[in-house]
Amino acid sequence: MKDVADMIIPTLDDMLAAHERIKPHIHRTPVLTSSYFNDLSGAELFFKCENFQKAGAFKVRGASNAVFGLSEEDADKGVCTHSSGNHALSLSYAAGRRGIPCNVVMPRTAPQAKKDAVRGYGGTITECEPSTTSREAVFAEVQAATGGNFVHPYNDPRVIAGQGTCSRELMEQTDGLDMVIAPIGGGGMISGTCLTLSNIAPEVKIIAAEPEQADDAYRSFKAGHIIADDAPNTIADGLKVPLKDLTWHFVSNHVTDILTASEDEIIAAMKLTWQRMKIVIEASCAVPLATILKNKDTFAGKRVGVIITGGNVDMDTLPWIKG
Amino acid sequence: MKDVADMIIPTLDDMLAAHERIKPHIHRTPVLTSSYFNDLSGAELFFKCENFQKAGAFKVRGASNAVFGLSEEDADKGVCTHSSGNHALSLSYAAGRRGIPCNVVMPRTAPQAKKDAVRGYGGTITECEPSTTSREAVFAEVQAATGGNFVHPYNDPRVIAGQGTCSRELMEQTDGLDMVIAPIGGGGMISGTCLTLSNIAPEVKIIAAEPEQADDAYRSFKAGHIIADDAPNTIADGLKVPLKDLTWHFVSNHVTDILTASEDEIIAAMKLTWQRMKIVIEASCAVPLATILKNKDTFAGKRVGVIITGGNVDMDTLPWIKG
Repeated sequence: MKDVADMIIPTLDDMLAAHERIKPHIHRTPVLTSSYFNDLSGAELFFKCENFQKAGAFKVRGASNAVFGLSEEDADKGVCTHSSGNHALSLSYAAGRRGIPCNVVMPRTAPQAKKDAVRGYGGTITECEPSTTSREAVFAEVQAATGGNFVHPYNDPRVIAGQGTCSRELMEQTDGLDMVIAPIGGGGMISGTCLTLSNIAPEVKIIAAEPEQADDAYRSFKAGHIIADDAPNTIADGLKVPLKDLTWHFVSNHVTDILTASEDEIIAAMKLTWQRMKIVIEASCAVPLATILKNKDTFAGKRVGVIITGGNVDMDTLPWIKG
Repeated sequence: MKDVADMIIPTLDDMLAAHERIKPHIHRTPVLTSSYFNDLSGAELFFKCENFQKAGAFKVRGASNAVFGLSEEDADKGVCTHSSGNHALSLSYAAGRRGIPCNVVMPRTAPQAKKDAVRGYGGTITECEPSTTSREAVFAEVQAATGGNFVHPYNDPRVIAGQGTCSRELMEQTDGLDMVIAPIGGGGMISGTCLTLSNIAPEVKIIAAEPEQADDAYRSFKAGHIIADDAPNTIADGLKVPLKDLTWHFVSNHVTDILTASEDEIIAAMKLTWQRMKIVIEASCAVPLATILKNKDTFAGKRVGVIITGGNVDMDTLPWIKG
């Protein structure tokens, strides 16, 4: 890691060390293709299926790297975090594998399936209101009470190094790519992707995909500095959080473009993926495909890696069915 | 093929020839495992994922074998069939690949997604009432009008030989199994499984799984002769059809047992598979898992192949969500 402007920036060596550290605890997820979506988009798409990942999402990569990198002394006090969902259950999973306590602050509106999974892995939940302000306030209390090591869901060099292992595998599993596209919320996956690709495949363009209704990263990218929303509203519940200094470092230096999609476009892409690929993906992971289908000229004829970030869905409330 | 009591019985050589013939037109589908379902059942389960198959179901194996085995002269007249869904679209897919006409009779209550898919592959649909009696009457008219080669959805030696290729792959993809379980409707998949396993792995027990509300195969098996229902009612819409002489031949000679599950048990197993394995499966394919979870003593400690037969689901009407 290197120290730049008061930030600890993870390096290629940190990503490689993370991959060795977490391999016993994660799946090397498959890369699927779909002749249907290739025909529809005009591009050649390679879906890196982190919905099949342990704990159901890519976030287990960064969380496991943080948990298994702790000294024995630090590990004894456990870990804590705040998260809109998948980081919470990934950290609970990793802490459970190491046998240490895990305390998480989750918005009370988080999907029930995710809350159940956190508790299933042995994590302890404290609920907050669904806003950044509330989450940070409640978390400060929990951290003070428990003394656990804070593993931020994305603005943490250990987490970013862990997420970077995903695109390393994707490059190994495909025969060269022109672009990689992933959703952007706080920017952890995109930052890990930037860390890895800027070192091992700098010719690959990196595109971030974001909901129109939570487009703080898009507006930040255009403005040249971080712009945060408080309490944005989108079906893509994993993407409501803002960029922070470390993820902004990677986004501002390495991302080629940020594209956005409407709620209807996201829901349509999600449903179509379930129907045609027979896989369960979260609304957040449908954002990249939605942007591909509305910007076909950008992707036509290209070999595009698409990171399917997770599959933890509340099956009782699907967005295309009115209950 | 050998002629027994006025039936043409497919042989091991027919299955092997079918596999060569259809390989360019099908996927070698993956076998997935789930630590969650292994823990829940006490068995070691190997899911053969025909939901990822071309046209979304195993039926494309038998349909392709029939279509691509036709002489040029016979092929010119096209093919025709009646089917509750997946055979209709599989035959349409195969006929489309060969460039010949395909006429199918489908119950008017078949899922809209399946009707759309048949038409998408170029098939022509004639609707009937949702009963065996109506289907056979309407089909006789269609066949007389078109003169196409009748490819029965299951009681056809070409179809059974094609379905048998699935368990051949399953045995190649696993390191030995104690049992294979598959759903039973008309008995095409089970018959193909019997054909293959009785020849290449006779030590493997074959279990059929059936909805309680369409349990004609279970009652036939116990009685020792075919008992048919007219118009049974179950969420597992692929399993409403009765056994016929050829499939009864295989079921009565090679199946170890038939287990049944209630509608609620089937729906719960279907939803749990979507939630935990992140794959889209039809209600019909959830019947084997439902019977495993209610008969744990039968399967505990065993290596069990589970054939996931298809993934063509009407996403707008999921059985656990009241619309």
